[in-house]
Amino acid sequence: MKLRHPMQTDTNQTPLHTIDLIRKKRDGLALDPREIGFLVSGAASGSIPIEQLSAWLMAAWLRGLSQDETRALTLAMRDSGEKFDSSRLGKTAVDKHSTGGVGDKTSFLVAPIAAACGLAVPMISGRALGHTGGTLDKLESIPGYRTALTLQEFETVLAHCGASIVSQTPALVPADRVLYALRDRTATVESPGLICASILSKKLAAGLDALVLDVKTGSGAFLRTQEDAEYLAALMVATAEAAGTRTVALLTDMGQPLGRMAGNFIELVESVELLRNQRPPESEDLRELSLILSGWMIHLGGAAPTPEIGRQFAEAALEDGSALAVFFKMIEAQGGDTSVFDSPAAFHKPGATQVLNAWQSGYISEMDTTAIGWAVQRTGAGRERAGEPVDPQAGILFHARRGARVEAGWPIATLYATTEAMLPEPIELLREAITISATPLDFVPLVSRIFTRENAEAHLGNAVR
Amino acid sequence: MKLRHPMQTDTNQTPLHTIDLIRKKRDGLALDPREIGFLVSGAASGSIPIEQLSAWLMAAWLRGLSQDETRALTLAMRDSGEKFDSSRLGKTAVDKHSTGGVGDKTSFLVAPIAAACGLAVPMISGRALGHTGGTLDKLESIPGYRTALTLQEFETVLAHCGASIVSQTPALVPADRVLYALRDRTATVESPGLICASILSKKLAAGLDALVLDVKTGSGAFLRTQEDAEYLAALMVATAEAAGTRTVALLTDMGQPLGRMAGNFIELVESVELLRNQRPPESEDLRELSLILSGWMIHLGGAAPTPEIGRQFAEAALEDGSALAVFFKMIEAQGGDTSVFDSPAAFHKPGATQVLNAWQSGYISEMDTTAIGWAVQRTGAGRERAGEPVDPQAGILFHARRGARVEAGWPIATLYATTEAMLPEPIELLREAITISATPLDFVPLVSRIFTRENAEAHLGNAVR
Repeated sequence: MKLRHPMQTDTNQTPLHTIDLIRKKRDGLALDPREIGFLVSGAASGSIPIEQLSAWLMAAWLRGLSQDETRALTLAMRDSGEKFDSSRLGKTAVDKHSTGGVGDKTSFLVAPIAAACGLAVPMISGRALGHTGGTLDKLESIPGYRTALTLQEFETVLAHCGASIVSQTPALVPADRVLYALRDRTATVESPGLICASILSKKLAAGLDALVLDVKTGSGAFLRTQEDAEYLAALMVATAEAAGTRTVALLTDMGQPLGRMAGNFIELVESVELLRNQRPPESEDLRELSLILSGWMIHLGGAAPTPEIGRQFAEAALEDGSALAVFFKMIEAQGGDTSVFDSPAAFHKPGATQVLNAWQSGYISEMDTTAIGWAVQRTGAGRERAGEPVDPQAGILFHARRGARVEAGWPIATLYATTEAMLPEPIELLREAITISATPLDFVPLVSRIFTRENAEAHLGNAVR
Repeated sequence: MKLRHPMQTDTNQTPLHTIDLIRKKRDGLALDPREIGFLVSGAASGSIPIEQLSAWLMAAWLRGLSQDETRALTLAMRDSGEKFDSSRLGKTAVDKHSTGGVGDKTSFLVAPIAAACGLAVPMISGRALGHTGGTLDKLESIPGYRTALTLQEFETVLAHCGASIVSQTPALVPADRVLYALRDRTATVESPGLICASILSKKLAAGLDALVLDVKTGSGAFLRTQEDAEYLAALMVATAEAAGTRTVALLTDMGQPLGRMAGNFIELVESVELLRNQRPPESEDLRELSLILSGWMIHLGGAAPTPEIGRQFAEAALEDGSALAVFFKMIEAQGGDTSVFDSPAAFHKPGATQVLNAWQSGYISEMDTTAIGWAVQRTGAGRERAGEPVDPQAGILFHARRGARVEAGWPIATLYATTEAMLPEPIELLREAITISATPLDFVPLVSRIFTRENAEAHLGNAVR
């Protein structure tokens, strides 16, 4: 227990006290970069106890963070551990980050496409949690694929293949590891400033020249309102640009799962189909979004004068097979066995399978994609708590997507679960999540808005959130 | 890490999850008694991790607690550990609690006075921290006095003397021990609901029939505005009355130290002077407040039809020496050596002494009593952090009090410090804390307002603070 003595004063010469910084944020004042840096280094080193970090996080959640605080937090977190030196690759380093969704497998397309266009894609990804899937879990469904590379191995794969998708090393952004675990337990996740700093600190620690952000909107999105998603998108663009990384954010629809498969191995199957120029109609939105995102990566990375021309280059890299070649080369460089894609159906052996049929005739109108994400999790494909194992074979294949006309009894989805006993819960969740109505839904655009350095700051104004 | 599954619902049949209760308070909603009870028992047992308790405390600080939440919190905390069964004393059990001040030694007067009037006073007290003194530290300046009695020893002393002043046992209100330590480290102390629950849970666990609350106002008070002090006072009265304890709260002036001595042993010297019917003019406010508080204790305890008549009984107990007899009997029953009061000046041997003289002529107008409290602490009489030792001999004797006319060079105060080297800091603090001006200050009443069960609820309205 420590009470401030009245003769202590706060100048840059005096030591900082955590209790004063909690009180300052509690009272709605903004911390300066030195104060933010003190908290972040204390979080990384363990010198600030978790009860004080937690109280500060709740105060920040409720009082909001200014844009200056968010920038200071992002940079201090970026600098809290080791970093990846992308300049040694001799190529422009670009990446794409999504705020998370259901069936979102664009990484498997945009990383090899951008690499095939001459850029380096050092992609540090995450795991499934709750209703959202995880890129690392999906990749680990390929026998032998190693996600836990050292930074040296990461560099070797990047030099060899142009792209590498790995997990965060323990020494990279250790402050985020501490703060994220606390946010998860203290109901302080959904704060724009805290989300921005958590995402960007890891991306900036990878030494990116350019970054494309895919901010999800709609029923499956982490942020539920368009306004919140727009604020976060503009905040991330302004913050990353201020740190010297060319950045764009696209607000994209997560009002239904992206593509027709959601799970682990089956998402790779769908991605490889597209890389092989197969074009199932139910996968068309996935192909389209991947090309748009790739186009921006190629443009911001300096390999195309406009994002539209970048998209043309991306489409060419898909059609000439060069992106597929990069993807398989990367999988093999990380120890994975690409022969599973020779006959994916032979490799895909889920424990239990069941088809959900339409319970009435009409149009698939609304899809509660968060609930669908939980249904995917309940098949065994995801996890409720960090550290739980996932079933590589589990997931859901959608036969009908939003807007489709179905007759009663037609198959809507096929569920692949770990065991027969696990099937009823996701079936029930899925049935409740999908609305079949008499009239079709209005068209929902795939990309609703784009923030670049030209319009992000104007959108933010002086907001503190 | 735990995410809610959408099929979980909150009914009284389902288990509670701490994360949901944090989120609820974060979003400004009130928790019900079952939810509050879950948090409190989790705090006491250690089953809820401190980062979650801290986040909830900050959310409660910023969103406020409703009166129902405050009542539920108070009762759950009261019931979190062992209790004292005052009904076995065969007398009405009454107590007085002060929100803390400088030179506040009324406990040494009101406890023996009320006991001399036939009531039982089971007083569980606290220690010095920061700018406020502690009753236990003061009593421990008497050689041999033991404050850490078992509940059985406490009962024995009460049966024998009518009053006993002890420290909290480890098993009494364990939830407060955990939550208070967290509040102290997370800048969540100054919340009316949390303060109310912390104070009353301990008082109610002592099985009181009646309680008199002394809520300080003015420059030395914990709550700095009259409005905050009034809200807390009314909240405590309404909450304690709802729990079945007759309660009154007096708002009293802490715009200067109470009485003329502030420290440890010297505060007992001043108290014993009054119990011996000596009446130094600079101690008159202490005598007056002690009689008013005793009058209410005697009235609420059923031994006088009005607080005014209670006050007459109190004055009689002072004047006939019966209160002094109780006080000495209690000290001896707890192992203390009352012979130090035979010749207090001979026992009082501070390490270093210095007189502060008036630096100009005029009236003592303002006394920044928080700063004066820190000056007392800096003599060695108090502590900055819990657990630090205190010097029983240290403190400050005031020769002139608010409103006094002084000439330049006249002594204002005598400081008693542990060492010569420690003197300059409290001297400087004291000099800055006292204003000498050309005109006298307006009169400040000793008691500015009284809340009883009749007017407390009306004052509160539907406020959530």
